[in-house]
Amino acid sequence: MKLVVEKFGGSSVADRIRIEACADRIVRTRKEGNAVAAVVSAMYGETNRLIDMAHQYALEPSRREVDAMISTGEQVSSALLAITLQKKGCPARSFTGAQIAIVTEPVHGKARVSRVDVEKLEKVIADGIVPVIAGFQGIDEEGNITTLGRGGSDTTAVAIAAALRADECRIYSDVDGIFTADPNTVPDARVLDQITIEEILELAGVGAKVLQIRAVEFAYKYHVPMRVLSSFKDVPGTSITLGEDTMDMEQPLISGVAYNINEAKFTILGVPDRPGIASQVFSPIADAHINVDMIIQNIGTDNNTDLTFTIDRNEYASCGRILDDVVAQIGARGYTGSQDIAKISVVGVGMRSHTGIATKMFTTLANEGINIQMISTSEIKISVIVDEKYAKLGVRALHDAFNLSENNVPDREEAPQAVLQM
Amino acid sequence: MKLVVEKFGGSSVADRIRIEACADRIVRTRKEGNAVAAVVSAMYGETNRLIDMAHQYALEPSRREVDAMISTGEQVSSALLAITLQKKGCPARSFTGAQIAIVTEPVHGKARVSRVDVEKLEKVIADGIVPVIAGFQGIDEEGNITTLGRGGSDTTAVAIAAALRADECRIYSDVDGIFTADPNTVPDARVLDQITIEEILELAGVGAKVLQIRAVEFAYKYHVPMRVLSSFKDVPGTSITLGEDTMDMEQPLISGVAYNINEAKFTILGVPDRPGIASQVFSPIADAHINVDMIIQNIGTDNNTDLTFTIDRNEYASCGRILDDVVAQIGARGYTGSQDIAKISVVGVGMRSHTGIATKMFTTLANEGINIQMISTSEIKISVIVDEKYAKLGVRALHDAFNLSENNVPDREEAPQAVLQM
Repeated sequence: MKLVVEKFGGSSVADRIRIEACADRIVRTRKEGNAVAAVVSAMYGETNRLIDMAHQYALEPSRREVDAMISTGEQVSSALLAITLQKKGCPARSFTGAQIAIVTEPVHGKARVSRVDVEKLEKVIADGIVPVIAGFQGIDEEGNITTLGRGGSDTTAVAIAAALRADECRIYSDVDGIFTADPNTVPDARVLDQITIEEILELAGVGAKVLQIRAVEFAYKYHVPMRVLSSFKDVPGTSITLGEDTMDMEQPLISGVAYNINEAKFTILGVPDRPGIASQVFSPIADAHINVDMIIQNIGTDNNTDLTFTIDRNEYASCGRILDDVVAQIGARGYTGSQDIAKISVVGVGMRSHTGIATKMFTTLANEGINIQMISTSEIKISVIVDEKYAKLGVRALHDAFNLSENNVPDREEAPQAVLQM
Repeated sequence: MKLVVEKFGGSSVADRIRIEACADRIVRTRKEGNAVAAVVSAMYGETNRLIDMAHQYALEPSRREVDAMISTGEQVSSALLAITLQKKGCPARSFTGAQIAIVTEPVHGKARVSRVDVEKLEKVIADGIVPVIAGFQGIDEEGNITTLGRGGSDTTAVAIAAALRADECRIYSDVDGIFTADPNTVPDARVLDQITIEEILELAGVGAKVLQIRAVEFAYKYHVPMRVLSSFKDVPGTSITLGEDTMDMEQPLISGVAYNINEAKFTILGVPDRPGIASQVFSPIADAHINVDMIIQNIGTDNNTDLTFTIDRNEYASCGRILDDVVAQIGARGYTGSQDIAKISVVGVGMRSHTGIATKMFTTLANEGINIQMISTSEIKISVIVDEKYAKLGVRALHDAFNLSENNVPDREEAPQAVLQM
């Protein structure tokens, strides 16, 4: 008998009708001969309601107490799903993170899972009962309630799947799967049948809201096969395969196109070209907990260089204040900044063995009159920074150029296949 | 340094303004030189909201899952009070029943507390932190979440006070204390300065909604001094003293008058007067979990007797069905039933050492033309069953007859003092 972990997101448990549908899914999966462990998010809107409530009582409520409050959202939804399963004749029992236990590091608001006790779960499953596990939450070694951060229920599901050595971890939400591109931007974007974990990791890095990144890292580390699918429709969704397996398969060159308009760019002008200069620039930025994404440095001709980097747009003002000091300290000529940028990325494991992807990307953008400000590449991703106003045009052009749409029959040798974003 | 447990009921934590007031109370108690442990109910209406929600999902939702849901009410309110205390500069930390742990028997909906682990609480208090404990909830030995029944937060407070050997357990609610009679029925009813635990126990038995009965039993058993007071006004409230102490004190003869209109009465006619007959009547009633309150049997002259007893009015129909069988089995002549009854009780430890209370009670009722249908007495209580329509008239007459009102100066030797009910 196979064991399947089925995780239902907030919109999938938003009300009684939706929870009935989740219960029906679980009953069907069992009828297909599987054992099931369920993981649930809080009902849609509940986490925000509780966070807002906490902030009515104090401007900066203790994160420990906020965690204690918001963890109740999943406690309620897990009990409701258990009640609904029981009503349908399916034995079920709810569990909080503490009851399992799902043990995390002693951090509030975004704790990492350190271990999952499976003894109780294995016994329940062996007894033919569906454990319905409150996602998003755990306890630290002291017994304090912790939460795993936004999207943390995905991580719970993968952690449970890894600990139970489940055969598949299914992530149900209100989308049909992982698209070749944002369907709002590219009307003929299609759902991918499969994608590799590495591609998902790169996509998350460029801002696509696919899955909680730590969930995917967990799946990668513990070899948990995942599937992203809809609890609203009867569609197969997107299978997230392990990297190793896909090396043997004929993969499309590119799985998707993503874009991110939440970054800002700084260029430090006339940076003296000497060892240690990059450290002098980026140490104070790191100390301020500002995450730097792309960094580009061109060696200049006159012992000076221009250093360009991107950060989260929310940090633009505070980063500018840091650069005022940095520029003076290192004797640079000054700096410029821009918030009107977008990052467009094409991602695909097929890039590893095929050339010409970058050229095709640059040519396509040039044909649309889109100027490329920065370029960054990895093994399976090419990202470019362009003017924000060209972001959607660029994504559509690339989706076309790589010949990806619902109407195309994949031709895996000849042309890149898929361009994706959610 | 004294240790005070302060418990706040649902109306005392109904909203932000009320929770601020609770926090101010705790801060004041600490400024008076005490350490404080707080216990909270769910915000007013929250428990019912969650129970209603559970019943939208199934007609008879699992009690285990209902407990998991409703325990979140206190989890939220305890975190909110902790947040509010912290905002006022008072170190505080919330705890669920599981985190303490408050261990109960493995029963859902009305579990009894079996033990309280105090190690964590004692450490927190020693560190100068106010633990804010979610009332009403515990865990069984298996880690399942249990609840203690309506009013269970009172029991939590007393159990915590007993375990910590606290000097006082203060129960804050929206009433000023324990009254000599229901102020809605008797306008000049007054708040008692003190009452004995035994009197409270008798009062609870006649339907006065004073405190959760099990909380008082717990206080009695573990010698926990309690005080009932208002979180809305700055009044001293009613001190609930231990029975032993009050034996030495000049006690008022009677502390209060209570009435209960939630009972019904059955009389089995022509019961054969032979050994074992009572058992034959009451065993099937007990098997149906119907609680019998008063029982009166008069020995008849012709080897027959009439057996009268009262039960909760909600059980009237089901008890009647049982009696159909019982009457046939034991060869009785038949039975009659009435739902239009009221029980009026006067309660007071002073009765132990004074005579004439019963006579005064019967005379007072007779003077009002109120017929007494049944009489039952205990050491500190006299209860009578009368026609329901005379309930309030009887209570007012007794309150007057025993010369109890706000304007009377207590004259403890000469006259009974207080007649009470909430």
